[in-house]
Amino acid sequence: MKKITVIGGDKRLKIAEKQLTEKGFSVDTVGLYDNDSGNIADGDVLLLPVPTTKDGETVFAPFAKRKIFLEEIADKADNRLLLTCNYDFKGKNCVDYGKLDSYSLLNAIPTAEGAIKLAIENTSFTLWQSRVLVIGYGRVGKVLADRLKGLGAYVTVSARKPSDFALIKALGYNAVETRTVSDSLSDYDIVFNTVDVKVIDERVFENCSVKLLIDLSSKGGFDLAAARDCGIPALTAPGLPGLCAPLTAGKILAETVTEILSLYI
Amino acid sequence: MKKITVIGGDKRLKIAEKQLTEKGFSVDTVGLYDNDSGNIADGDVLLLPVPTTKDGETVFAPFAKRKIFLEEIADKADNRLLLTCNYDFKGKNCVDYGKLDSYSLLNAIPTAEGAIKLAIENTSFTLWQSRVLVIGYGRVGKVLADRLKGLGAYVTVSARKPSDFALIKALGYNAVETRTVSDSLSDYDIVFNTVDVKVIDERVFENCSVKLLIDLSSKGGFDLAAARDCGIPALTAPGLPGLCAPLTAGKILAETVTEILSLYI
Amino acid sequence: MKKITVIGGDKRLKIAEKQLTEKGFSVDTVGLYDNDSGNIADGDVLLLPVPTTKDGETVFAPFAKRKIFLEEIADKADNRLLLTCNYDFKGKNCVDYGKLDSYSLLNAIPTAEGAIKLAIENTSFTLWQSRVLVIGYGRVGKVLADRLKGLGAYVTVSARKPSDFALIKALGYNAVETRTVSDSLSDYDIVFNTVDVKVIDERVFENCSVKLLIDLSSKGGFDLAAARDCGIPALTAPGLPGLCAPLTAGKILAETVTEILSLYI
Amino acid sequence: MKKITVIGGDKRLKIAEKQLTEKGFSVDTVGLYDNDSGNIADGDVLLLPVPTTKDGETVFAPFAKRKIFLEEIADKADNRLLLTCNYDFKGKNCVDYGKLDSYSLLNAIPTAEGAIKLAIENTSFTLWQSRVLVIGYGRVGKVLADRLKGLGAYVTVSARKPSDFALIKALGYNAVETRTVSDSLSDYDIVFNTVDVKVIDERVFENCSVKLLIDLSSKGGFDLAAARDCGIPALTAPGLPGLCAPLTAGKILAETVTEILSLYI
Repeated sequence: MKKITVIGGDKRLKIAEKQLTEKGFSVDTVGLYDNDSGNIADGDVLLLPVPTTKDGETVFAPFAKRKIFLEEIADKADNRLLLTCNYDFKGKNCVDYGKLDSYSLLNAIPTAEGAIKLAIENTSFTLWQSRVLVIGYGRVGKVLADRLKGLGAYVTVSARKPSDFALIKALGYNAVETRTVSDSLSDYDIVFNTVDVKVIDERVFENCSVKLLIDLSSKGGFDLAAARDCGIPALTAPGLPGLCAPLTAGKILAETVTEILSLYI
Repeated sequence: MKKITVIGGDKRLKIAEKQLTEKGFSVDTVGLYDNDSGNIADGDVLLLPVPTTKDGETVFAPFAKRKIFLEEIADKADNRLLLTCNYDFKGKNCVDYGKLDSYSLLNAIPTAEGAIKLAIENTSFTLWQSRVLVIGYGRVGKVLADRLKGLGAYVTVSARKPSDFALIKALGYNAVETRTVSDSLSDYDIVFNTVDVKVIDERVFENCSVKLLIDLSSKGGFDLAAARDCGIPALTAPGLPGLCAPLTAGKILAETVTEILSLYI
Repeated sequence: MKKITVIGGDKRLKIAEKQLTEKGFSVDTVGLYDNDSGNIADGDVLLLPVPTTKDGETVFAPFAKRKIFLEEIADKADNRLLLTCNYDFKGKNCVDYGKLDSYSLLNAIPTAEGAIKLAIENTSFTLWQSRVLVIGYGRVGKVLADRLKGLGAYVTVSARKPSDFALIKALGYNAVETRTVSDSLSDYDIVFNTVDVKVIDERVFENCSVKLLIDLSSKGGFDLAAARDCGIPALTAPGLPGLCAPLTAGKILAETVTEILSLYI
Repeated sequence: MKKITVIGGDKRLKIAEKQLTEKGFSVDTVGLYDNDSGNIADGDVLLLPVPTTKDGETVFAPFAKRKIFLEEIADKADNRLLLTCNYDFKGKNCVDYGKLDSYSLLNAIPTAEGAIKLAIENTSFTLWQSRVLVIGYGRVGKVLADRLKGLGAYVTVSARKPSDFALIKALGYNAVETRTVSDSLSDYDIVFNTVDVKVIDERVFENCSVKLLIDLSSKGGFDLAAARDCGIPALTAPGLPGLCAPLTAGKILAETVTEILSLYI
């Protein structure tokens, strides 16, 4: 069995470490605990955390005693397999698991649950019989819409492609075009954005009766400050899987790593 | 139209007041705001809050400047209609709306949503694919089981009567007998209790792998302290409708009052 | 183990016979096959079929070579346990399993599936997005409403008791009062009746745009002929479990018998 | 408004004709009724039926008095817009609506309902608690899996791409690889095929306990005769939308035509 070195990361990586060990891998850690004694040079595979970096310079390693620089990893990488999340070590033998469909879709589940928790917490009414809009019918949109329907909300889903409308309607939601959601924002009690482009024109916030806006995208689908200026409660919620379900997120990561290793080694 | 005097209460009663006013009633308040100037003697109907009392002596009135004694209400009641929640003014013209089916069932919805929020918040895994037990197939049990299934959990429901088992199975849940739940507690990740008698023997907590216990009953279905002593996170959650969805709870109350008045006056 | 003699019956009883044999009972048959050689006097328990009689005089026994009279059974019953379906041998040791909740509710499942098959077959539109009314929120109504919602129909359920309305709404259906369904019949594409009293006034058929009426009750909830005279396709569907899912129906029967024997013997 | 000439077709086309007329188009027919007097040369748009041809030579026109040859249409087409279903008039101004996502997906709904009707009809057990396999997670697979779950079946879905597995699991189904379904066929009570390549090896039919095979693909996913030879009931079900829900199918067609005309003319 190949030896895996986990570098940095939060609770999820601790769980992934345990799971990978249970699956029979030899796993070492660097900067995942404040006193871990692993060595980057020892591993055949270097598992970088979720996300691999937050500042573009150092590995995301909240439990580490010292900074671990991305450059340091690159220097010591040789032909080791680097597993990263939304980061590319150019010119190295690198697989970005954050871009794998199976990884991101399974993470859509804790994201959807976290979003539901936020919605229950930040409204004074029930999701049952409330009118909700899910912007975007990608991974998170598909799972979130399913869950909201299960809770008895009236669910509308927006999509860019008309070809998605038919599936949206077939599964029991209303369908609207993403580019027109600004026009009808006041038709909803809660709006969840899941797309990475700005889809809501901030001018509509002025006279808008939406009770809660939640942005689940990584880059933002609307101007949070503008919404709040108009008195609309607006939240971003990055990293929900790690916050709401680190155990599940860690297991998903361990499964993804196992899947990659079965293909690449 | 009859005149309603709201006495005490929290945010729900403020919403109920507004809703009843919109429905055309003349509504006055005593002890619902810190400066309200209503008079008990003015109303035809006295609407007492949810719950009517917490200490058995005074009306539950968190926003009031002074204590309002139950005895005072009884003294001034005459033949006015008293609407109470889980309290009986003996010998008076009193309807306990807390005991009405329609009122308690609609409140089961915000209770179920609040319980789901607590479960997402207090576990490190997703509800999706987790094994949950709902003890009791009454109002809250029926709604909660439906919602948990919608979120992708593996749901088992316990009931006392075998005649309920068939419906439980027909709707896609597993069925177990309430009196035997202690025997198989470790089969579940999360347990929600909804019944008002003690159903879980605390001796089973010793070697129990349940990750979260949530008690939604008013009188308690297990010994919270004993569970915590054994390291099992255990929560009670009284008054979830008021906490999680005061707007919905207030509307439900206003509808219930309107329904009662159409029958009794 | 007690000896069971099955008397008459159709395919369901053949399956129940096989299932009971597998459960370890000694089972004999009289009039279930054209050449069976069992003897009524041999059994400790006499299992009468579903339904026990259709004419009030003979046992329902479509595969039997000769008529078996109810009187003959009564004569030979002595103190044997008689298991019947919707029939009472007065003065005998008799359990009417047709009246047991668990039996009738499980039979509600094949009934609901059979009703759905009839609806798909007898309309030129999809159940998806069609407006359906389920009259009655008893066993069959509860299961049928759940299934129709799963197929994407817009489901309204009628009930007599306002206390049922809250649960109906909580589970995602519209609620109407059973006694007023005649007033709004044209609001629906398909109407399923599940109650045993006449609830639809035939005068409304005259100008009614309903596309299909299906009566699932045993005694009839509307005048079938009157509906057809007005050009509305109308079906009764007695015995759907036996027709649509004899295997499941037979298993349910065998389980019910086992349950009864564990209690009564 | 442009003039549409409907050529051939069955009940669906009659409904589409009516719908298009209601939408304000001038519509004429050739070979849709036994006495229609339209003229191919009159229309700006020629609407060919579903499917456009069954024999590759003549237009599918079951109600027509005479054969209408595809060559005849091609000769008279000039620069008219030809709307076809799964047929291409090479070198002509032709849109194959049968290949449009929105058209095929909406047709997946009546297909799924028809498949459910067939399954209820051709088994002696309930869909509830039966183990079903849906081969393929394309349009029909997605809708059919959703409906079967709604009916209480235990649903497994097969897909080719591992990236689909995550969504399949997220929505509450089991996931298996399409290329391995032959290995575990006996794990299911009912198998629905929706893919257009042969996925089941006929050698597994020999000792197979599947109770029903339904092929919903157009080209066939298994050898029907081989299955039947081994005693497994096996059905093909082409054209379910037209059979089960011609009204819905006709409306979907009219909407598709309107959509195309708004883009192309």
